[in-house]
Amino acid sequence: MAETERTDAIGGLHTPALLVDLAAFDANSARMRESLVRAGGAVLRPHLKTVKSVPAALRMLGGTDAPITVSTLLEAEQFAGAGFRDILYAVGIAPAKLGRVWELRGRGVDLSVILDNIESARAVARSAQASGDPIPVLIEIDSDGHRAGVRLDDSALLLAIAEALRAGGAELRGVMTHAGGSYAARSGEEIRAAAARERDAVLSAASILRGNGFAAPVVSVGSTPTALYPAGLAGVTEVRAGVYPFMDLVMAGLGVCRLEDIALSVLATVIGHQRDKGWILVDAGWMAMSRDRGTASQVVDQGYGVVCEADGRPYPDLIMASANQEHGILSVRPGSAAGLPDLPVGSLLRILPNHACATAAQFGGYHVLEGGAAVDHWPRFNGW
Amino acid sequence: MAETERTDAIGGLHTPALLVDLAAFDANSARMRESLVRAGGAVLRPHLKTVKSVPAALRMLGGTDAPITVSTLLEAEQFAGAGFRDILYAVGIAPAKLGRVWELRGRGVDLSVILDNIESARAVARSAQASGDPIPVLIEIDSDGHRAGVRLDDSALLLAIAEALRAGGAELRGVMTHAGGSYAARSGEEIRAAAARERDAVLSAASILRGNGFAAPVVSVGSTPTALYPAGLAGVTEVRAGVYPFMDLVMAGLGVCRLEDIALSVLATVIGHQRDKGWILVDAGWMAMSRDRGTASQVVDQGYGVVCEADGRPYPDLIMASANQEHGILSVRPGSAAGLPDLPVGSLLRILPNHACATAAQFGGYHVLEGGAAVDHWPRFNGW
Repeated sequence: MAETERTDAIGGLHTPALLVDLAAFDANSARMRESLVRAGGAVLRPHLKTVKSVPAALRMLGGTDAPITVSTLLEAEQFAGAGFRDILYAVGIAPAKLGRVWELRGRGVDLSVILDNIESARAVARSAQASGDPIPVLIEIDSDGHRAGVRLDDSALLLAIAEALRAGGAELRGVMTHAGGSYAARSGEEIRAAAARERDAVLSAASILRGNGFAAPVVSVGSTPTALYPAGLAGVTEVRAGVYPFMDLVMAGLGVCRLEDIALSVLATVIGHQRDKGWILVDAGWMAMSRDRGTASQVVDQGYGVVCEADGRPYPDLIMASANQEHGILSVRPGSAAGLPDLPVGSLLRILPNHACATAAQFGGYHVLEGGAAVDHWPRFNGW
Repeated sequence: MAETERTDAIGGLHTPALLVDLAAFDANSARMRESLVRAGGAVLRPHLKTVKSVPAALRMLGGTDAPITVSTLLEAEQFAGAGFRDILYAVGIAPAKLGRVWELRGRGVDLSVILDNIESARAVARSAQASGDPIPVLIEIDSDGHRAGVRLDDSALLLAIAEALRAGGAELRGVMTHAGGSYAARSGEEIRAAAARERDAVLSAASILRGNGFAAPVVSVGSTPTALYPAGLAGVTEVRAGVYPFMDLVMAGLGVCRLEDIALSVLATVIGHQRDKGWILVDAGWMAMSRDRGTASQVVDQGYGVVCEADGRPYPDLIMASANQEHGILSVRPGSAAGLPDLPVGSLLRILPNHACATAAQFGGYHVLEGGAAVDHWPRFNGW
């Protein structure tokens, strides 16, 4: 009876719809804060590329005083418009984007940028010199070879970047890295090893800079897995993490959370069956779930998502096995003894996503659930 | 010199940005019209799930008189608002969506729906009876086992659906199918075989219905590959296709178009290098390209996209080999003798996407290029 009531409470939403379970969202947010306190009190600078929503950010952070990280200048502009004042734009700066950086800094936002090469350093230095605004810069360090950043064995480049920034009067604020490699870990131990590499890389880089007369007050690391399995944060001043308030199947596959901790799901409606094939068709396809198949490289491939009852309880071994643009095809995981549940046309389901950042970006906002009822809507923004 | 001018003409756009080459868009649109004329004159009912943009639709179709197909009721509402009046909503109707269907039909829109099961047919019949509005229905036929639809060997179900619709006074307008299996073809011959299966399936279904006293005036087929490689369309009244005005790498991999026919691309800026690895980093990652990796199952895997100069000419064997949320990693295809081009930080590039429907959905609009200059912006809508 309670279940039916809760189902009805979301039955008025147009499907597919994006849902956030507020209790899980709050618990995940608290867990990250507590993890960092236990690890020694580095400042949390959440990466808001995941939520891209002012009300979601305010819920996570309690206000606009918190430092934040963004992945686009549109995010910086939107969060600055809401009152956030300490913003790190954590994708290597393209010189043509400096105009938007100045504009935000001119509005009193302490917007800092990152870079890993001499051309960008010179461009920032020229801007700083021309404007008299010492645009703060973190030098990006490559801690695991997975993406951008100065390699630790290239201290000549590290120092040349620092020198180019100083020559133009830009502010070298410190160093940062992202342990993207932690997403390939297979155990908490492997995540801790990634966290140690991440930390050691930026501590080494900061030490090289300081040993050569450069201040590097900020030492910034981050990813949700390494922030929850830190290897000791002595010397680290701040931790960035993004997906933690929502969590997702990739994080569950890493062992970083349980299925029931995942706060984000897509509400879908059954629109048909192919009973001879064991298929249930729903009105959420890859346009709703995104094309992200992050669990495909994990031990358990969850297809396009794990299927739950409308109240959030997972069905045994029922996944979205494949997807077209607006069709999801649900079936029982190969090899499972679980039967296909009886779900007539019109049944409501919730699908847990592979990757919260990707799935959330397919929607214009979040329907916020409390006690199973949709109590609020948090708009989000996409684009650049 | 001309090249530099054309590059400068788009240099003012914030990257990543979505570009449409108008000449290619027009040529692709004309090619589809001509293909159908040659095949015998079935009506083109374009699937606007790809463009999701009123100005793009008007450019394709020359006005709002054309019949159209949509994949969501939001598309139906948006295109109806722009004046389109003959709209097929081509995803199996969920009973809870009938309210939005009535609302549109009440505004004078000839909105038709599809279904493939008795529960949905009864729901539509009840609605038709209650409202006195004979909601037009096409019965979806499964022509290749890839998704939804009544199987041809289940004529009992086909007739039961038709009877349920008639009992409520709903309008059985005909039958439709989608040859999704054509995307797995390896040659024009295989596409023609898929087109023949698609056509034969709906012709058989229409024949069963007519032989049992049901009118089935509409016989609807469609996919871009089968529409461009038709197997003869006698008896088919309309053809649906969506991706054709843009084309994409999946279509090029199928042999349905050439790389230079692809009208859609993502403009990106070089933000760094990992020279020891042969990597160029750009500010377009999977958030811009989408996570679609449609070419991964084709003969040539194009990664997240084929990299072109700012004027659209592909670099030899340069692809976006991997992607993070806002980072694309470009490298030369494994095994290629091509060298990495010298692309300093700040260089502008264009990336051709795997799948136009997925990439376009990551953006709020199209920058329209004519003669290499951005001459217009077509807004698009996402969501449901």
